[in-house]
Amino acid sequence: MNWLDNVKWDRDGLVPVIAQEAHTKDVLMFAFMNREALAETARRGEAVYWSRSRGRLWHKGEESGHIQKVHEIRLDCDADVVLLSVTQLGHEPGIACHTGRHSCFFQVLRDDAWVSVDPVLKDPASIYK
Amino acid sequence: MNWLDNVKWDRDGLVPVIAQEAHTKDVLMFAFMNREALAETARRGEAVYWSRSRGRLWHKGEESGHIQKVHEIRLDCDADVVLLSVTQLGHEPGIACHTGRHSCFFQVLRDDAWVSVDPVLKDPASIYK
Repeated sequence: MNWLDNVKWDRDGLVPVIAQEAHTKDVLMFAFMNREALAETARRGEAVYWSRSRGRLWHKGEESGHIQKVHEIRLDCDADVVLLSVTQLGHEPGIACHTGRHSCFFQVLRDDAWVSVDPVLKDPASIYK
Repeated sequence: MNWLDNVKWDRDGLVPVIAQEAHTKDVLMFAFMNREALAETARRGEAVYWSRSRGRLWHKGEESGHIQKVHEIRLDCDADVVLLSVTQLGHEPGIACHTGRHSCFFQVLRDDAWVSVDPVLKDPASIYK
């Protein structure tokens, strides 16, 4: 049995994926993979997601240069969520978010409002030319 | 505008949630919340999820005693994923997984196979009586 068959794909043929930075353990982003994306991620050693908005494989960093080198691929107890341990390349500190921030999770709930607390490390206009 | 209205709920009225342990930064588990679950989580300061299998609110630890104390609630750039910073109570080290393990992500891909690499800390039969 192929290891890809052990994954419980959802009704859209996708699995949710959490990308965690290896050295800081920061949660960087959340995205989806289909079977081909997960196979490609394992083969390349770089994160390849399924872009639901674009309806195609998305080799993270293909435009921005912010490639995610993958050190480890984990699967949860129900076999329906994947956790990647990655190094975020192309900038120091790593930029995983399309807003130019380190992590996509930059909004914190404070006094019943979402507050952006993390800095933009690079202008998105200069990331996506 | 209510902060709950800022969340982009999916077609089932849910949002994916990642629980990360505050002091180790380990990713413990992944689950879903509906609007009421997220409101309850913020109000109690303890994780309350929506159980899709049981079709009801699920106050994490209600059976096992493995409550998740919530320190911080974050929202991602697209406002459609939540990240909790938690302390996993009831056992040291914390047990988040129903298998009695620390984290739900205990299977690692090695040589094209998923290998369980993390120990069972407590027999599930003694957790769920």
